Amino acid sequence: MFDVSSLSVTHIISVSGTAAFAISAVFAASNKEVDLFALMVLGVITAVGGGTLRDTLLQVPVFWSQDMSFIWISLAATTAAFMLYGLLKLAWLNRIYLYVDSIAIALFAIQGTNKAWELGFGLPLAPVMLGVITAVGGGVIRDMLIQRPTLLFSKELYAIPVALGCALHALVLHWLPQYADSSSLAGIALIVYGRHLSINRKLMVPQWALLGYRFTLIK
Amino acid sequence: MFDVSSLSVTHIISVSGTAAFAISAVFAASNKEVDLFALMVLGVITAVGGGTLRDTLLQVPVFWSQDMSFIWISLAATTAAFMLYGLLKLAWLNRIYLYVDSIAIALFAIQGTNKAWELGFGLPLAPVMLGVITAVGGGVIRDMLIQRPTLLFSKELYAIPVALGCALHALVLHWLPQYADSSSLAGIALIVYGRHLSINRKLMVPQWALLGYRFTLIK
Amino acid sequence: MFDVSSLSVTHIISVSGTAAFAISAVFAASNKEVDLFALMVLGVITAVGGGTLRDTLLQVPVFWSQDMSFIWISLAATTAAFMLYGLLKLAWLNRIYLYVDSIAIALFAIQGTNKAWELGFGLPLAPVMLGVITAVGGGVIRDMLIQRPTLLFSKELYAIPVALGCALHALVLHWLPQYADSSSLAGIALIVYGRHLSINRKLMVPQWALLGYRFTLIK
Repeated sequence: MFDVSSLSVTHIISVSGTAAFAISAVFAASNKEVDLFALMVLGVITAVGGGTLRDTLLQVPVFWSQDMSFIWISLAATTAAFMLYGLLKLAWLNRIYLYVDSIAIALFAIQGTNKAWELGFGLPLAPVMLGVITAVGGGVIRDMLIQRPTLLFSKELYAIPVALGCALHALVLHWLPQYADSSSLAGIALIVYGRHLSINRKLMVPQWALLGYRFTLIK
Repeated sequence: MFDVSSLSVTHIISVSGTAAFAISAVFAASNKEVDLFALMVLGVITAVGGGTLRDTLLQVPVFWSQDMSFIWISLAATTAAFMLYGLLKLAWLNRIYLYVDSIAIALFAIQGTNKAWELGFGLPLAPVMLGVITAVGGGVIRDMLIQRPTLLFSKELYAIPVALGCALHALVLHWLPQYADSSSLAGIALIVYGRHLSINRKLMVPQWALLGYRFTLIK
Repeated sequence: MFDVSSLSVTHIISVSGTAAFAISAVFAASNKEVDLFALMVLGVITAVGGGTLRDTLLQVPVFWSQDMSFIWISLAATTAAFMLYGLLKLAWLNRIYLYVDSIAIALFAIQGTNKAWELGFGLPLAPVMLGVITAVGGGVIRDMLIQRPTLLFSKELYAIPVALGCALHALVLHWLPQYADSSSLAGIALIVYGRHLSINRKLMVPQWALLGYRFTLIK
């Protein structure tokens, strides 16, 4: 199987993606009376929470206990974002942030699917679930901690492209394993494209797919 | 010990109970702007969340990783409930739903107690706790995710009959293990009866058992 | 290494600290319509939740499954606090409660750091994290369950002295392991002193360390 984690480009995305995840906690908490320490806790949880949930479900050692650089990066990124909060409002920097974040979501999701697949964990469906959990789990815990509606229930396309990308990759792993390398990349591309449509084209969940809408129809 | 999971009637209850748990997520989210995908996530978490918490605490492989049908059933039930939302309002169907849900809560609770007992996990108290966690854990996580007051703190009799049923079974396992078969059934019956009293007789937690009430007495 | 758990004074603090943690759930829920059973659940989660998170991350058996007295103490303390709620308002008893609580937080934190250190888990940073998780994790889960702002985000000095005490101890374990016994005690003293400053001197997180304040500067 294509080992996403062996490439140095993957390493760069992992590092910058971890930072982007941690920084998302600073954005999320920006209207709360949160201090730097709580922000660091929140940044770390956001950055590594998804992978921690994944590893707990897989019952393998949590990934960061074996490479603490993920934690150091999260701490540094949260502190830097706190110090230089004004910079985060610069349009061009915000743009870079969103791209890094999208690519990181995609990479972490496909890595999650691969990890579960290699362990033969509930094939072929569970690896898709664990890919989604890896990518969005940290953000969901973050939102629960700061008591804002979780991103899972926003109309923004967030978890849906992640699930589609992981499902595509899992289907190829199942039926055409010789193309796993390509489908890793295709899955990542699909997720990034979905996030792009959501952020830049304001694509949303269609109304017929909302429970509230169906509910209104019936009443 | 009476192996609840070997009977085919148990299998039927497991399948329909998993579906009932997943459908409860559709009810719980009915006044939120939730899309079908988020609903599927919520349905799966509600259906298998309690057993997942139990298996994580027991440090055994999570049950659904070895039989993914629980996940497929949850996905199918949530999707069907979303599509046919109007049907859920039919009085007779709602009645069947509540019965299936009660029986499933009872079965999953006693199964949870049995699983912990067989592993010798913190006897005799911890198996009672794990029975309760199995039965209500998924619902509690669901309520935290959609940010509504958790069922644990409602005045409805929900977790209390579950705890009583599991405690009865654990007491028999401890003192009269030869009657474990009967006490599995008696525990299930007790839980179902408690839920029946709550739903059909509007039996609630008595006022003297409420902290708010005691608090008022003192002030 | 100094084995904190071998001393009988440690045992006394563990027992009374577990009770104090459980009773904190009664305080936290005092303005909610919570019944005695839900309170017992909340008390147990508050008392053992942090250690349970720690042991789940470390992938070792959860501590209370091997010594259920922690659970029995939590149940008894919650029930007693419910019955004798008026007593909790007595100034001198409240004072004792706060001291016991502070010392327990400190002891559990340093024990958490020691446990992770002995397992060689992500040295030297992860043991600091696990010390904090052990001490404050139960309270954070409690706050999420009753849907009040978590103590992590209060301006009160709560998690910060815990982190400093664990960090001090971890630094000594790393650089001067022969002084580990003393640094256990120094870490505990530092945490208790931090809590004392917070409770009795109303010391708070300084304004410049608040994200909201930085945010206001920029706008």
